[in-house]
Amino acid sequence: MDAGLAAAFDPPGFHRAAEQCTLRLRRYLDDPEIKGLDLVEPAVLMKAARELMTAERDDVAGYDEGRFHQIMDLYLNTGIQVHSPGYLGRQFSGVVPLAGLVDLVSSVANQPSSFYEAGQLPNVAERLMAEELGRFLGWDGERSAMVTTSGGSMANLTALLAARNRAFPGIWSRGVAEEGGRPAIAISEDAHYSVSRAAGVLGIGEEHIVRLPVDECGRIRVGAVAPILDAAEQRGLRVFCLVASSGTTAMGAFDPLDELAALTRPRGIWLHVDGAHGASLLLSERHRERLRGIAEVDSLTWDAHKMLFVPAPCTLLFYRDGSAAAGAFRQRASYVFDEEPDVYSALDSGDKNLECTKRPMIMPLWTLWSMYGPALFTRKIDHLCAMTVQAHRMLAAEPDFTVLHEPEANILCFRFTPEGLDDADLHALQLAIRNRLRADGRFFISKVHIGGVAALRVVLMNHKITAEHLDLLITEIRTTGSRVLREGAAAGGREDGSQR
Amino acid sequence: MDAGLAAAFDPPGFHRAAEQCTLRLRRYLDDPEIKGLDLVEPAVLMKAARELMTAERDDVAGYDEGRFHQIMDLYLNTGIQVHSPGYLGRQFSGVVPLAGLVDLVSSVANQPSSFYEAGQLPNVAERLMAEELGRFLGWDGERSAMVTTSGGSMANLTALLAARNRAFPGIWSRGVAEEGGRPAIAISEDAHYSVSRAAGVLGIGEEHIVRLPVDECGRIRVGAVAPILDAAEQRGLRVFCLVASSGTTAMGAFDPLDELAALTRPRGIWLHVDGAHGASLLLSERHRERLRGIAEVDSLTWDAHKMLFVPAPCTLLFYRDGSAAAGAFRQRASYVFDEEPDVYSALDSGDKNLECTKRPMIMPLWTLWSMYGPALFTRKIDHLCAMTVQAHRMLAAEPDFTVLHEPEANILCFRFTPEGLDDADLHALQLAIRNRLRADGRFFISKVHIGGVAALRVVLMNHKITAEHLDLLITEIRTTGSRVLREGAAAGGREDGSQR
Repeated sequence: MDAGLAAAFDPPGFHRAAEQCTLRLRRYLDDPEIKGLDLVEPAVLMKAARELMTAERDDVAGYDEGRFHQIMDLYLNTGIQVHSPGYLGRQFSGVVPLAGLVDLVSSVANQPSSFYEAGQLPNVAERLMAEELGRFLGWDGERSAMVTTSGGSMANLTALLAARNRAFPGIWSRGVAEEGGRPAIAISEDAHYSVSRAAGVLGIGEEHIVRLPVDECGRIRVGAVAPILDAAEQRGLRVFCLVASSGTTAMGAFDPLDELAALTRPRGIWLHVDGAHGASLLLSERHRERLRGIAEVDSLTWDAHKMLFVPAPCTLLFYRDGSAAAGAFRQRASYVFDEEPDVYSALDSGDKNLECTKRPMIMPLWTLWSMYGPALFTRKIDHLCAMTVQAHRMLAAEPDFTVLHEPEANILCFRFTPEGLDDADLHALQLAIRNRLRADGRFFISKVHIGGVAALRVVLMNHKITAEHLDLLITEIRTTGSRVLREGAAAGGREDGSQR
Repeated sequence: MDAGLAAAFDPPGFHRAAEQCTLRLRRYLDDPEIKGLDLVEPAVLMKAARELMTAERDDVAGYDEGRFHQIMDLYLNTGIQVHSPGYLGRQFSGVVPLAGLVDLVSSVANQPSSFYEAGQLPNVAERLMAEELGRFLGWDGERSAMVTTSGGSMANLTALLAARNRAFPGIWSRGVAEEGGRPAIAISEDAHYSVSRAAGVLGIGEEHIVRLPVDECGRIRVGAVAPILDAAEQRGLRVFCLVASSGTTAMGAFDPLDELAALTRPRGIWLHVDGAHGASLLLSERHRERLRGIAEVDSLTWDAHKMLFVPAPCTLLFYRDGSAAAGAFRQRASYVFDEEPDVYSALDSGDKNLECTKRPMIMPLWTLWSMYGPALFTRKIDHLCAMTVQAHRMLAAEPDFTVLHEPEANILCFRFTPEGLDDADLHALQLAIRNRLRADGRFFISKVHIGGVAALRVVLMNHKITAEHLDLLITEIRTTGSRVLREGAAAGGREDGSQR
């Protein structure tokens, strides 16, 4: 056996590298600096990274401690600083660190989790978490089902597949056809891009997306829904699914699930909720009212890697009627799933998710839940939402800022609005502020278009963010904005509010 | 701020838990025992897991060292023992341990990688690995493209989407329709189930899958392809993609890419290769001949979490024509992708993969490549393939075993075939042997149907497997098989050869 190969698998060598790695991570977590992002030109970073690659090609290079340190440093230093209060950009969170260690165990032990025999504890943990989180949905626990999958986009696609296949049982075999009405979905104007994409992927066609208008806070205008659905039907469309958001990516708006369910139920339309961001509010007594009506919906996408603070991805897809979960995919022709299920294979999820090899993504969540209990999550969620209300109050008190909505969760959109600017100027100003802040490296925030005009957007994912940090941010935005205006250089930038 | 919440994020607390965790993993890696799997009744495991969950619901429970140890132990002990020579089950591998540490950094720092600004180094590392691995494809590096995605099933779906959208530019907007021929794909009888599933997902319909027959080694019979494609065309099908395997899941068979390309090119059919398992053989001088013709194909799925020994998932999807990568998804309507790309966003992959939040799955692979060089992979691949040839030789020398094929990589299928049994008996016998071996816990192997009769299957993913282990396995199979026959209890089990 090759000595270099054996050395790369050497347990004491692993242990030494692990000590260096975890010490480096401890320093990273301990870093008190306020910073958002150190943005580097790709060409510069490419050069730096290339220099870290061994030139050895003929033999297995020996472990080089210095090289590993440099790689870790470059990785940590160039990433978004999710553990710093300077990071208010998107729905990525500094994870509960213990969750990272569970991921380490998963990675080294390499347990795939689509099949019970290959990953026994992950499959059991999925059942346990379905039970724990299912309590907050108000569904019949015996009938409902949950499957984990690789991200919210995948979960939305899977739910739409299940809905499509229920409404059009022939599609799986015969493909999309004209008979019985053209398949269509109804979605909010503010739905995440993964939902409209799904129409393209599934062969439905983007033209057969029925768009539902939103109010000024980003919520579906329920009064407009019935006439729109009627009109769609008259155009020969058969809307099989309506997708609501809890909440939207842009403004964190929560669509009125109860009212939407009252409209979809009598029509036999599947109601799917993209709760990637906001479903976690169900855990909070204070905030679960945002999802009133959740008991009436058919399926729910819930990203634990957002407001449950575990490493990405960890998405949970819930079905009120568990039998629907089996309808997303069919593989009767395949020999994997043909035989009689036994006591072990009854726990398999491979027939219900797209993945064959699936990361045991539930393990960090189940471990945190088991170690710390649900209060870990509710305390943090409540704190973040409270801080967002405080941010709203602070910004509303500034005469040269305009806040665009009352925050429903931990997302807040606003503009720096000194007097005398028209919409085009305001638009360019926000983009310029956002990009300069990003380049300055202390605060990282995002931007989003609202009513055709760019706005600034903060997402509070870090419980270490205090009013002092928000004060600093307001000052920095004002200073930067004033400088931009003085320089007359309110250059546009790239809008990216739909990236979560 | 809640003290319990703050404690869960405490850096010294993380460091202490990390020390326990990495010490436990070192012991796990050091364990010399030959073991496959400790199969536990789900109800029993459920009870054990439930007992590890804190009863605390009102406050954040404190970190409990004993509980964390018990969780790690239960996780590691009930998993497939990928680092032991007793595990020969499927294409899961004991990873190079350093890769697990990189995953730990990714998990704690939580960098998503669909957008450059959110994960700068992962995006640069993707470019570097595209360059490094692309050399082995013989494509024009300037024109080709690579995108990472969450598993081989996802990559196959994405490639088929790109192929579908190129052949039928109207589908994305207008949905699947009859005009211009019914969209269809041609796939091997032995293709992985994710490929036939894709036809159902994409609205093509499973009935519009054209099946290509395979020879006794599991390779597409090239001579049969042209008439089958002609016949499909006459039935009104428009085959836009042919999917080949390098190699198949069942037997590790490599379809003849050069000959298939010669057939698909003149017909304008996209040739996609599911190389999830076998593409890694490209790195080996000794074995890359199996993929002769790879330079002529249109796209390739390559799972680094199989034969490049990194944590799952890490799938690379290569396109010979990079512009095709942008065709899988369209999101012009979405505001994320509308604006002028800048130097940073030019590296984004969000428009080319389904995921919005995507794990920086490239980082473990790039780090191993940078630290150890390519020889780490080629040495291990060569060793595994050589041991599989040896396993073939050993089994062929046993009078009561039948080997079903010359191994093309590191997968070998065979049967225990004492005299006097008919096919039905042989079938039941193999299933019984496999399940008993699994239950006994020393060896974990898989089974697969070949020609309608079950066979035993080993996948050699561990370089620590020696001829002595194979001898032990042969003895154990014979002993177990004889016992089954004596007991007359050759009860059937569940076949699962298509799970990789």
